[in-house]
Amino acid sequence: MVVGLLLDKYERQRGNVSTKYIEIDPAFVEKTILEISAFGAVGETGISRTVYSSEWVGATDYYADACAAAGLEVHRDAVGNVWGRLRGSTNEKSVASGSHIDSQTPGGRYDGTLGALAALIALKALKEQFGTPRRTIEAVAFCEEESSRFPNANYWGSRAVTGRISPEDPERVIAFSGETIAQAMRDVGLDPARIPEARRDDIGSFVELHIEQGPILEQAGLPVAIVDAITGIRHYRGEIRGVQNHAGAFPMDIRHDPLAGFAEIASGMINTAHRIGRPAVTTIGRVVVEPNFPGIIPAKVGFTIDARHPDPQVRDRLYAMHEGLMHEVAARRGLEIDWEVMLDHKPSPSDPAIVSTLQRVAAEQGVPFMTMASGAGHDSQQMAAIADVAMIFVRSKDGRSHTPDEFSSIEDIVAGVRVLAAGLHALAY
Amino acid sequence: MVVGLLLDKYERQRGNVSTKYIEIDPAFVEKTILEISAFGAVGETGISRTVYSSEWVGATDYYADACAAAGLEVHRDAVGNVWGRLRGSTNEKSVASGSHIDSQTPGGRYDGTLGALAALIALKALKEQFGTPRRTIEAVAFCEEESSRFPNANYWGSRAVTGRISPEDPERVIAFSGETIAQAMRDVGLDPARIPEARRDDIGSFVELHIEQGPILEQAGLPVAIVDAITGIRHYRGEIRGVQNHAGAFPMDIRHDPLAGFAEIASGMINTAHRIGRPAVTTIGRVVVEPNFPGIIPAKVGFTIDARHPDPQVRDRLYAMHEGLMHEVAARRGLEIDWEVMLDHKPSPSDPAIVSTLQRVAAEQGVPFMTMASGAGHDSQQMAAIADVAMIFVRSKDGRSHTPDEFSSIEDIVAGVRVLAAGLHALAY
Repeated sequence: MVVGLLLDKYERQRGNVSTKYIEIDPAFVEKTILEISAFGAVGETGISRTVYSSEWVGATDYYADACAAAGLEVHRDAVGNVWGRLRGSTNEKSVASGSHIDSQTPGGRYDGTLGALAALIALKALKEQFGTPRRTIEAVAFCEEESSRFPNANYWGSRAVTGRISPEDPERVIAFSGETIAQAMRDVGLDPARIPEARRDDIGSFVELHIEQGPILEQAGLPVAIVDAITGIRHYRGEIRGVQNHAGAFPMDIRHDPLAGFAEIASGMINTAHRIGRPAVTTIGRVVVEPNFPGIIPAKVGFTIDARHPDPQVRDRLYAMHEGLMHEVAARRGLEIDWEVMLDHKPSPSDPAIVSTLQRVAAEQGVPFMTMASGAGHDSQQMAAIADVAMIFVRSKDGRSHTPDEFSSIEDIVAGVRVLAAGLHALAY
Repeated sequence: MVVGLLLDKYERQRGNVSTKYIEIDPAFVEKTILEISAFGAVGETGISRTVYSSEWVGATDYYADACAAAGLEVHRDAVGNVWGRLRGSTNEKSVASGSHIDSQTPGGRYDGTLGALAALIALKALKEQFGTPRRTIEAVAFCEEESSRFPNANYWGSRAVTGRISPEDPERVIAFSGETIAQAMRDVGLDPARIPEARRDDIGSFVELHIEQGPILEQAGLPVAIVDAITGIRHYRGEIRGVQNHAGAFPMDIRHDPLAGFAEIASGMINTAHRIGRPAVTTIGRVVVEPNFPGIIPAKVGFTIDARHPDPQVRDRLYAMHEGLMHEVAARRGLEIDWEVMLDHKPSPSDPAIVSTLQRVAAEQGVPFMTMASGAGHDSQQMAAIADVAMIFVRSKDGRSHTPDEFSSIEDIVAGVRVLAAGLHALAY
C-alpha cells in the first residue's frame, strides 16, 4: 500500500486513503515544466515552438531523455512523435496518454506540453510505485496540433498515428512561410514517405490531460474536470453582398447595406447561442469589409462563424437557426448571401467506461472534480478513430490560453496528474 | 428675345416662354463631356484623374482652351484652378460657377467635371445670347476635391480660393504614395509658396452644378434639384475592446466579445438613422477586427461612423443617440469603448435668395425640379466662407457615383445647365 506523503489540500479533503493513492512529486512536476519551457522561450512565460523547428527538436530531445531517465523505452516514430513505454506483462492493447509538444506563436507553457509531461510523470510514478502493469502503458508527445506553422496540418501528429495522412498530404500541407511539411520533415531528418509507419493498431485506450483553456473550472472553484465529450465544431465562411453607394447621398430606406445585414446576423447568432445556453457557443471571429472606407456604404462583408455544441441534435438545431437567420435577414434587406462550410467536426463523445473510471479514481484520490464537455478540439478526437478515449482538464487561470499569460498552478497540475495516473492504473494494472 | 430651338420634353412642358429662356446646345454638351473624358480614361466610361497628374494637366489645358474658344478670359491661379471670365460692365462682386476637375480612381465622367463644364457652357450661352453682363461671371474648374491622391487635401482647390490653406499645409498634405502636395505642385510647375495668391475676395455669389450622386431625383422622376443646404457630416472613429479568448472554451454568458457589442451598436445606429427618416443617414463603412481569426473571440473592433443631417438640431440629436448607444451597449456588455471625431462639418445652408432665384428660373425655363439637401460635401461648402452659395443637382442613373457606372443623360444635363445659365443670368444681368 502506497500512501501519499504530500499533504496538499486535496489530500486533506480525502475521506479514505485508497489502496491506489498515488504520490506525484510537485517538485518534479515544476522542474520538468520549467526545463522544457527553455525550448522556444519567448519573454518570461511565452513559448513559440512550431513543429519541426530547432526549438521543437530541442523539446523532443528533452522529452525522449526524460522518458529514458524515468526507465521508459523510448521510440521516435516516423512523423516525429516521441513515445515512452512502460512494457506490460501481457499482449493486450496498450493504454496511452499524452498531448502535443508544439505551441502557438507565442503561446504559453501549458497548452499541449502539459499533457505530454503529465503522461511521462504518471508513468514514472506508476513504475516506481506499482511496478510492471498488465497492459503496456505509453506516454506520447505528439509532434503537432496547433497548426501554428502549417495552417492545414490538421492534427499532424495524432493523425499519423491513426493512419489518416494520405500520401499526397506531405506536399500539400504548406507553411505560412511557403515551405511544404515534407521539406520541414526532411530538414529534421524525417522521411515523409515513411509516415505510414507511424500508424498504430495496438492502442486500446487513450487518456489526454490538457489545460481547460476556459474559465469554467475557475468559476466552479475546482482543479480538475473529467471530459465526457469534445464538442462538435462547424466553421462557416459567409459573404453578404449589397450595393456600394455614397454614404451621404443614399437614403436609409432604400439602401442595400450589407453591413446592416451583417450586424443583424451577427447579433442574432450570438444571441441564439447565448439563449440555447452552455455549452453552445457561436463566435464571429473574422470580418472583412469591402471597400472599407468611412464614407462608402460597403459592397460586401465577408465573415466567419464558429459554432459549437457537443450534443448532435442541439448542434443541428444551432446550425439550422444560424442558416435560417442568414436567409431571413438577407431576403428582408434585399441582400445576397452565401456561405460554405470550411470545417465540420462531429461531436466526439468520450468512452463512457473510461469516463466512469476517471470519475471513480478522482473521487478515490480526493480530487474535487466536475464533468464537462471540451469546447476546443484535441488530439483525442483523432485518437478516437483507433482507441477508446477520454480527457482530463486542469484549471486555467482566468481561462486564458494561446497566450504567454496561460497559467495553471502546480497544485492543480499535481491533482490532474494524480487523476491521470490513477486512471491509467485502473486501466492497465 | 431668345427662344429655345430645342424642343425637348422639358421645353414642351413650359407654359409660357420667358424672356430669359436660354438655349443650350445638347451636341456641344455631349462633345465637351466626351472630349474631356479622354484625360484619364479608364475602360469605356471610367475616369482616373488625380490632382497634379499628367491626366489632370491634360484636362486643365482642355478646359482653358475651351474657355478661350468660348470667348472667356482665361486665368490659371496659383493652386492650379482654371478660371474663364465673362467680364461685366460694373465692378460689383462677380458671380462664379464651377466644380472640381479631379476624380476618384476610378470614378466616372460626371462627378465634379460636369459642374466645371456646365459653367463654361452656361457662360458661352449667356455671352452669345445676352452679351455683356452687369456683374462679371466666372466659370471655374477647381483643381481638387476628391482626396483621391492626397487623403487630407480637404477641398484643396476651393479652400485656396477662400484663403484657408495654411503655409504649413503643402508639406503636411501627403499622398497615399508618400509624396507631399508641395512636390506634386512643383512637378507641374506650380509654386506652393504662392498659394495665398489664389485667394479671392471679389466673388459675391457661387452656384455649383453637380450630379446628385443619389437616387432621390430618379425615384421622383425629376431631372433637376435646387439644393437648399449641404448636410452636416460627422465622422467618428471608434474602438470597442473586450477580452480575446478561445472560441470554444469560453461560455457565451461570461464573454466580453467586442464583436457582439459592435454588431449591436452598428444595428442600433443604422436603425436610429432609418427611424429619424430622410435625410438622416448613418453609415458604418469601415470595420477592422483584431486578431481576425475564425476561432478566436476578438480582442477589439475598430470602426467608423459617418452620420449626416442638414438640420443642426436633428443632427445634434442623431449624434447624441449614437453616442448614448455606444455608452449603453459597452457598459451593459462589460466592454471598453472610446471614439474620436475625425471630421465634423456643420450643415451649410444655401443662400435663401439664390435658392429662390433658382427655383423661379427653373420654373420659367420649364424644368421640373424639387428642392432637397445635399447629403454629400461639395466645394460650395468652402465657397460659402466668401460668397453666397447654392447648388443645382442633376439626376444620377441608379444614384451611382464614384464608379465608372456613373451616368446622367444629356437631356437631364441640358435641363440642369439651362437652370444654371438662367440663374447666372438672373444674378448677373
